[in-house]
Amino acid sequence: MSPHHPEVDVVVVGAGMAGLVCAHRLRSRGVGVLVLEAGPRPGGRTAGAEVDGEPVDLGGQFIGPGQDRVYALAAELGIATFPTYTAGSNVLETGTGRLRRFRGMAPRLGPVTLLDVAQARFRLDRLAGTIDTGTPWRSPDAAALDGQTLQSWIDRTVRTRGGRRFLALAVRAIWACEPGELSLLHALFYVKSAGSLSALTDFEGGAQQDRLVCGAHGLARRLAAGLGAGLLLDTPVRRIEQDDRGATVITEAGTAWRTGQVVVAVPPPLASRIAYHPPMPAVRDNLLQRLPMGSVLKYIATYPEPFWRTAGLSGAALSLRGPITMTVDSSPQSGRRGVLIAFVGGRAARDLATCSEAGRRALLLDALSRLFGPPAARPTAFVEQNWNDEPFTRGAYAAVFPPGTWTGPGSALRAAVGRIHWAGTETSPRWYGYIEGAVRSGELAADTVIRALRPRPPAPAGEAARPPS
Amino acid sequence: MSPHHPEVDVVVVGAGMAGLVCAHRLRSRGVGVLVLEAGPRPGGRTAGAEVDGEPVDLGGQFIGPGQDRVYALAAELGIATFPTYTAGSNVLETGTGRLRRFRGMAPRLGPVTLLDVAQARFRLDRLAGTIDTGTPWRSPDAAALDGQTLQSWIDRTVRTRGGRRFLALAVRAIWACEPGELSLLHALFYVKSAGSLSALTDFEGGAQQDRLVCGAHGLARRLAAGLGAGLLLDTPVRRIEQDDRGATVITEAGTAWRTGQVVVAVPPPLASRIAYHPPMPAVRDNLLQRLPMGSVLKYIATYPEPFWRTAGLSGAALSLRGPITMTVDSSPQSGRRGVLIAFVGGRAARDLATCSEAGRRALLLDALSRLFGPPAARPTAFVEQNWNDEPFTRGAYAAVFPPGTWTGPGSALRAAVGRIHWAGTETSPRWYGYIEGAVRSGELAADTVIRALRPRPPAPAGEAARPPS
Repeated sequence: MSPHHPEVDVVVVGAGMAGLVCAHRLRSRGVGVLVLEAGPRPGGRTAGAEVDGEPVDLGGQFIGPGQDRVYALAAELGIATFPTYTAGSNVLETGTGRLRRFRGMAPRLGPVTLLDVAQARFRLDRLAGTIDTGTPWRSPDAAALDGQTLQSWIDRTVRTRGGRRFLALAVRAIWACEPGELSLLHALFYVKSAGSLSALTDFEGGAQQDRLVCGAHGLARRLAAGLGAGLLLDTPVRRIEQDDRGATVITEAGTAWRTGQVVVAVPPPLASRIAYHPPMPAVRDNLLQRLPMGSVLKYIATYPEPFWRTAGLSGAALSLRGPITMTVDSSPQSGRRGVLIAFVGGRAARDLATCSEAGRRALLLDALSRLFGPPAARPTAFVEQNWNDEPFTRGAYAAVFPPGTWTGPGSALRAAVGRIHWAGTETSPRWYGYIEGAVRSGELAADTVIRALRPRPPAPAGEAARPPS
Repeated sequence: MSPHHPEVDVVVVGAGMAGLVCAHRLRSRGVGVLVLEAGPRPGGRTAGAEVDGEPVDLGGQFIGPGQDRVYALAAELGIATFPTYTAGSNVLETGTGRLRRFRGMAPRLGPVTLLDVAQARFRLDRLAGTIDTGTPWRSPDAAALDGQTLQSWIDRTVRTRGGRRFLALAVRAIWACEPGELSLLHALFYVKSAGSLSALTDFEGGAQQDRLVCGAHGLARRLAAGLGAGLLLDTPVRRIEQDDRGATVITEAGTAWRTGQVVVAVPPPLASRIAYHPPMPAVRDNLLQRLPMGSVLKYIATYPEPFWRTAGLSGAALSLRGPITMTVDSSPQSGRRGVLIAFVGGRAARDLATCSEAGRRALLLDALSRLFGPPAARPTAFVEQNWNDEPFTRGAYAAVFPPGTWTGPGSALRAAVGRIHWAGTETSPRWYGYIEGAVRSGELAADTVIRALRPRPPAPAGEAARPPS
């Protein structure tokens, strides 16, 4: 290796949860690691802020059963969890603005519509059961499933207009995109990757069951603190070169790090913006040309108290009228202050971007007050997090596969290219799109890199020389 | 402007046909222009080589009626055109390897299948007639058309298996992708942008009618020669900054050019890999996350003479068996030597990439000899052009819109961002994907930039002060 460059065993690009977990694990195994983060903070799609003195999550925040690795990580870091508040009624706002209270996950849509939605859920779950999450392109009927949008499936399968509208809302809530943007195969893969549709949508027993006392971003902060000088912020990587003896990771500022292995742990569209030498194989390049991120805005509104609870409401709401897709009670565990979070996903997230900030605030507060009454329009603080504008994230929750992608260049998603390995929630066959997927991908990347750094010792000479019997 | 940086009125990024035409036009209007090309040659998706002493086109090469600007450019540059060879029978290879000769554009598929295909073509043309190519997202029923793949439309509309297979082959020939990858709305837009399906598929009267005597790449070579020192090759741009007074275009090597206006004339996926400061608006960034290029390999096989002509064949063939999608006689005008070109588009282009070069050659020559007889297996020269591997093109013929893209962030495709303007065939409402689209986009960008550089003089004070009557 060149004496002119600083050297390190492994360079990890990106200090989102995947990169941090990967580096944490490598360190714990005695491997030297440097994490280069483009932005000014660690955490990636988890991000924290203090609002009215309370730590709030601007990004991913919920965890639930089956997400074993993130619970284990929280336990290891000494971060407690607590259940998301779910007591009381949820609210559905219809397209015409009427409010309907409901319990559990089956909103009052009228019996025919409800049956229609229930059947669609049943069919999606059953179809999802056929998907091989390790190699989705090899699932039965993969070409046909991947040659159509989820919208086409809904149009064929769901008979009622109300049912189609409700499912479109669910798609915006789950994937932060419109049903006409994603492949049916990807939707099924995603459901299977979490286990079932209920696992995706439910609070109790599902992916929204629990929260972390210091916010999910607390995980990232503690991991980052553990890395100390092994994490450089504000250090975008612009080029990765590979040669016979190693790799060189070159930052925007021109520093060139020599290393043995590289883990790129950034969202797929951003991985494509790093220059590679030698260039990436065509199949991987083509894959990264077609993995758009979902579009989502997250709003945090704080109140002196969770006033909706006294009205018998859980704080969870869905809106067919918009622009809000969904709200959740995100108050601190103590309940001494009220916090509502609201998501705007898919088309509405793009449309809102054309409004002024003040215009968006007015629209959102109006929507919140329709759902929870006039007090909702008078928050003590109101914070907007636009994930689509974040230059080193560029959308959320995750990349969404358009038709023809899994069965086209999809097999290139997880395959290492020489000394470059890929991590991030999108590379995980389990809990794709969730913090759990990021954690799993980081752990897997660390294990893979360790094997690559320490090739098995050659078999003893006697063994190797023994002719096959 | 900083005295430390070299300055120029306009910087054009990319010396494909769009960038070259733009620069040529700017120069002719007395505007100072510098073209920065990442690769070692001008021409972009047109590229030339000399094979057996004959100039051949490794990229785009055909032109046809309605492509007025490219004919005008050829005339201006003194480059003559001549008709593509079309005498004799075309050949269709069936999925089982049987050969069927046919004349014109209607292969012998059996009467029921043929009627099925004819009806599908009629319906596609009729639907395409409803599309507004300037603002496809505002076309009637745009959301529904854009929420499905072309495959879904074929599955619903085409009743015979043979018809569906033939249409899939046509999709590979036209878009270099599979029917399950592209939006129905995009397919209709593309058809309308050329005028009709016949305009896309036909030789005489269609987009494959004519060729250029020095090859289409001759246009690029002459334009590049005219720019002299105003064109820098091997100069990738990695960053474009904008401020109140101008823009700075920074190359991979670190040179920073100050300029008043910038035209980015590279394929959409590559435009996303330039770093922008301030960052691009979210809607444009999201658009560029989802505009994959088609996947195509082009082969050129030369022979002592066009032997197929004496057998009554035109040299044009379509194969349902693969891996070849389509062949065309590309012999020089003199006919003193035989040249066949073969395209492999869509999935087969990705699959072939997993073979060795020798393996691909063997597969291709076997396919050619099935179509044209044993002499086709013994070319005097055989050249492969893999557009998917080209680091500064990364696919061809053009970007293909997946579902949800035109009606999602599509409106950001052509909108200038401050001092940055976009050119390239993908930005053209007419002849998107063709050399003609590139030429038109370059001319339009030049005109737009000239207006931006030279704001209209303010109206005389008396005029401005006059109250409305």
